[in-house]
Amino acid sequence: MPRHFADRLCEAVKSKKTALVVGLDPVYSRLPSTIKSHYESSTEEFDATSAVDAIFDFCTQTMQVVAPMVPAVKINIAFFEKYFWEGIETYYALISEADNLGLEVIGDVKRGDIGHTAELYAAAHLENPALVGLEDTLAPDAITINGFAGIDGIEPFADMATRQGKGIFVWVRSSNPSAAVIQDFADADGQTMYEKLAEIVGQVADKAERIGKSGYSNVGMVVGGTTPKVSTALRQKYDKVWFLVPGYGSQGASAADCVRFCKPDGTGALINASRSIIYAYEKPKYKEQFGDDWKKCIEQAVIDAKMDLANAMETLM
Amino acid sequence: MPRHFADRLCEAVKSKKTALVVGLDPVYSRLPSTIKSHYESSTEEFDATSAVDAIFDFCTQTMQVVAPMVPAVKINIAFFEKYFWEGIETYYALISEADNLGLEVIGDVKRGDIGHTAELYAAAHLENPALVGLEDTLAPDAITINGFAGIDGIEPFADMATRQGKGIFVWVRSSNPSAAVIQDFADADGQTMYEKLAEIVGQVADKAERIGKSGYSNVGMVVGGTTPKVSTALRQKYDKVWFLVPGYGSQGASAADCVRFCKPDGTGALINASRSIIYAYEKPKYKEQFGDDWKKCIEQAVIDAKMDLANAMETLM
Repeated sequence: MPRHFADRLCEAVKSKKTALVVGLDPVYSRLPSTIKSHYESSTEEFDATSAVDAIFDFCTQTMQVVAPMVPAVKINIAFFEKYFWEGIETYYALISEADNLGLEVIGDVKRGDIGHTAELYAAAHLENPALVGLEDTLAPDAITINGFAGIDGIEPFADMATRQGKGIFVWVRSSNPSAAVIQDFADADGQTMYEKLAEIVGQVADKAERIGKSGYSNVGMVVGGTTPKVSTALRQKYDKVWFLVPGYGSQGASAADCVRFCKPDGTGALINASRSIIYAYEKPKYKEQFGDDWKKCIEQAVIDAKMDLANAMETLM
Repeated sequence: MPRHFADRLCEAVKSKKTALVVGLDPVYSRLPSTIKSHYESSTEEFDATSAVDAIFDFCTQTMQVVAPMVPAVKINIAFFEKYFWEGIETYYALISEADNLGLEVIGDVKRGDIGHTAELYAAAHLENPALVGLEDTLAPDAITINGFAGIDGIEPFADMATRQGKGIFVWVRSSNPSAAVIQDFADADGQTMYEKLAEIVGQVADKAERIGKSGYSNVGMVVGGTTPKVSTALRQKYDKVWFLVPGYGSQGASAADCVRFCKPDGTGALINASRSIIYAYEKPKYKEQFGDDWKKCIEQAVIDAKMDLANAMETLM
């Protein structure tokens, strides 16, 4: 049995001195040209297998660059599902690579359903398979889930995560333009739907068997970084919860917005940046400095993002 | 370009004279013993590949039995994800088999996310791949999605479905015990969250390019069958929408509850039964009649369910 997921997160965030998580959302057409040209020239016909091989290569090299600097990576399965079963095999291969590099791995899968189906999804995405022929496959350390079904649809994931020493992050509030229509839908007392959902997640998170030595639960919340009022209120109310905060960087949330989810010691939130890091080599400011050395660009983007978040933390305190 | 999805559904429902859809939620341990023993004895070591081969065999034979009798099958991807990439390959292989048998295929995938990720999921699950090496793979005719992100998270799926002559069903209201806490969350005027979500789906569905010759949209709703008040109101309000109704059979919704989603000509709803059909051979009443002939048990369960729904339709009118 591995140590409690939340305790591993605390240790990783403290040792890397940052809440920054690198999100892997790889699109073939945006890969560095050196990687693309290698795979396009090495096969007679460029096919789906070549594309996923190139994506695997890019993601592995990216993780090797970022592993000494960040506690975790978030792998977005949608970008792998596009390549059907070959993409899924690559997704799991990357989880093993990340594990070898000492990174915590969050599978951004947003699964959600009721009853038996929720149990099956939990088994698929959180249980290290004991199946013969697949026993070397690793499930991620945590996944994101969709809690639209209410507590029935959350508990099967939380139970499986707890049994496996893993974690879940329930999607509570996103920062896309139309999110408010549903997620801020408010009752007669002004309580919003996402606040109601947060209460349910808070109850699931609070169960004694889910709390680690660090005082944190293995059940967390996904909350977009663009709403500072939301972040401050949720951080205060749900003391035992880790927040996974998307939207830092390309999606427009500032460092100041995001660090409001952290506690003063820097734990309690994972702040995800995807495109602003993994495509850093597209940005003039890095390109001018490092030319075609795309890994140097990514490395520098991580250094800059960590500094940006550290400065924001200091201003906050 | 195939014909409009909603028009294909109308034709299929009229020709098979039923709204019944068979849901494939296959669990290895519940497969007929003749199938299990074949796969367990034919390999030295029973592994994940043997399990998915057995599941493929069972589902294919089941579809051959039901294809002349029902308009569509619903394949629940969670039961395949449990077997990782091998499961996903089997899921797509079954879609091709269903297509060969003339069945409409609904991929029950409940995907949902924002922006670019929603586009990627839509490509993965609704676009027949043009990728070299995968060009023989078929995406399903329609999928279920999760609309928690609001309209931003629904439109990318609706657009892709429309371009591909396919459909989507947005999860609006489920019938699990805890669903009400979130989905019936009500504002000061008494409007519930699921009604708000239904309004959004109704707007997406109503766009001219999404309406077929039948007058129906390719954008539908998933609504559990256990709440008759809900069904009558939604059917009246959303005239152009197909409802996908889970919960008939094992999950406790009666035929009378479910047929309220149908229009008088029998179109407008797909009523799904999964376990009550595919595991019919476990039931004493079929076992006594047909012994080990599990396919006869499934066939009779379909005949009985069709009759039950037809009788309920007659009572309603």
